[in-house]
Amino acid sequence: MYPAHAYGATSATSPLEPITIKHRALGPNDVLIDVKFCGICHSDIHTVRGEWGPQPYPLVPGHEIVGIVAETGSAVARHSVGDRVGVGCMVNSCRTCTPCRAGQEQYCENDCILTYGSPDRDGTITQGGYATRVVVTEDFVVNVPDAIRLDEAAPLLCAGITTYSPLRRWGAGPGKKVAVVGLGGLGHMAVKLAHAMGAEVTVLSQSLKKMDDGLRLGATAYHATSDPDTFIRLAGSFDLIVNTVSAPLDLDAYVALLALDGAMVNVGAPPQPMALSMFPLIMRRRTVAGSTIGGIAETQEMLDFCARYRIGAEIEVISAEKINESYERILASDVRYRFVIDTTTL
Amino acid sequence: MYPAHAYGATSATSPLEPITIKHRALGPNDVLIDVKFCGICHSDIHTVRGEWGPQPYPLVPGHEIVGIVAETGSAVARHSVGDRVGVGCMVNSCRTCTPCRAGQEQYCENDCILTYGSPDRDGTITQGGYATRVVVTEDFVVNVPDAIRLDEAAPLLCAGITTYSPLRRWGAGPGKKVAVVGLGGLGHMAVKLAHAMGAEVTVLSQSLKKMDDGLRLGATAYHATSDPDTFIRLAGSFDLIVNTVSAPLDLDAYVALLALDGAMVNVGAPPQPMALSMFPLIMRRRTVAGSTIGGIAETQEMLDFCARYRIGAEIEVISAEKINESYERILASDVRYRFVIDTTTL
Repeated sequence: MYPAHAYGATSATSPLEPITIKHRALGPNDVLIDVKFCGICHSDIHTVRGEWGPQPYPLVPGHEIVGIVAETGSAVARHSVGDRVGVGCMVNSCRTCTPCRAGQEQYCENDCILTYGSPDRDGTITQGGYATRVVVTEDFVVNVPDAIRLDEAAPLLCAGITTYSPLRRWGAGPGKKVAVVGLGGLGHMAVKLAHAMGAEVTVLSQSLKKMDDGLRLGATAYHATSDPDTFIRLAGSFDLIVNTVSAPLDLDAYVALLALDGAMVNVGAPPQPMALSMFPLIMRRRTVAGSTIGGIAETQEMLDFCARYRIGAEIEVISAEKINESYERILASDVRYRFVIDTTTL
Repeated sequence: MYPAHAYGATSATSPLEPITIKHRALGPNDVLIDVKFCGICHSDIHTVRGEWGPQPYPLVPGHEIVGIVAETGSAVARHSVGDRVGVGCMVNSCRTCTPCRAGQEQYCENDCILTYGSPDRDGTITQGGYATRVVVTEDFVVNVPDAIRLDEAAPLLCAGITTYSPLRRWGAGPGKKVAVVGLGGLGHMAVKLAHAMGAEVTVLSQSLKKMDDGLRLGATAYHATSDPDTFIRLAGSFDLIVNTVSAPLDLDAYVALLALDGAMVNVGAPPQPMALSMFPLIMRRRTVAGSTIGGIAETQEMLDFCARYRIGAEIEVISAEKINESYERILASDVRYRFVIDTTTL
């Protein structure tokens, strides 16, 4: 058993606090990782506060994990002690269903095991990366190339793959016009990645407050969605819109920004339904779609892509005692663009 | 100038009545067609009654036109006198925009000229196929193969291509499960076409009233959408849902019937927006899309496909004086599955 210092919640209403957790003894295919950094994802907040359903407490969130392999099980072949590695939103899946066999473990039909708060195979509840150590089965551990700083790599494991996957699937690349709605943790990665893929990138943000950042990150245009003119000027412009905003928005207004055969892919979403008109889809063969994270092989592909293009997240490294404060700042959109916990402070 | 006997509306509130129209003298690229049959599309009713916006009257509807070439302009190369030909929903487009150059004239950025009620290049208003003759520029006239009866071919020009195009684009074929929502003019063609493409076809209809027909046309399953069990039993089943229904429906309920990466493509739609939840799209990477008719080359491809598989529409041939009555029967869903006007009765 491997004890770990961690930060977790003991109830939906309590702030996170230092706790000690114990990870299982290494099975033959397990990897013990000394966690170095863990990103803070907006979904961590929703989850620990019970906003996405009741949770098992105590609960340690965190699914943007990077660290160094400290020990390997007897049968581990993919990783060695000392390797720079990462763990994202899931730590296992059934391995046998059609999506799993196609490398789409995120859509496992028998439910993939999430990195925290999920019942694990051994009956324990998974605990996340706001911790000094995690134990994960080797197939769900990816390699972090040397070209990416560990702290800047952490958010790639969720924010990076969540935007990389739909950009790839919907063909972001040279000659394609891509709009990114929202310039937060996911949005800033979408801008960097789409730009690196060769697409022409536009940011659609509530205000022009972060315009300098957006252009620096790779966008060639930046428009305020609070300005009705934006929707007139940009009508029919985009081949792909990646919506990273979790708040409700006027779907029809965004659909109208799509060109013929354009797709609006939602990676953020409010729980309540939104109104959608069909004729604007029909008359330009547009689509509205959704996408979540990516498979393990695709996550590795994304990290390799980021290494090749020297892409990391824009981060603010914090110590553990700032976690609760960072939650409030995330809710106030006061972060550029991802908090990353330095686990030596746990 | 070519006079034609026709049936048209003189106002949004008047029934259709016999009128005489005059078609332009043949330009070098024009084809004069002796219309033999014209299908009655639900959209004819919406249009002549002004439900889709004000119309120029008198107006002769009809965009499911088949006939025989009677005369050709001096430069016509694609058609000869005596040819069996068809004309669908559009009779011209700009020819220069990106969609036009890609053979997607239905998405012409400068507005394709619709078969009736559209301002034509010469300033006249186009008149449709409830008429003994039409004059159409040769590039928008397709060939009707000998293997398809002319009367059964007429509805292919709208109902056929409107369903063929999305079935092809979204990959209906062997190994794919396709659901067709609504077994009317469009739906019955979707069933025949998807079956001929090799897909496994399910009909989702309000009741089981037309079940025998659905199975005869090629479906292997038929479920009533009025039965809540349908939505439980079929959850996650379909790769593609083609929705031919113009009435509002519970989009989320249908989206839940889609498998991973499944698409719900709407070819019918109500004017008002419908509620759509994003999480069901996100968690299975599903899409909601729209599609309208098809390009000219694709319409020819569809007719050739129908000839190869001996597919025509299921029709009820009527004489001109039954047109107004047929409108009422269409609105009451009392047609199996398309009315076709015998133009000798005009």
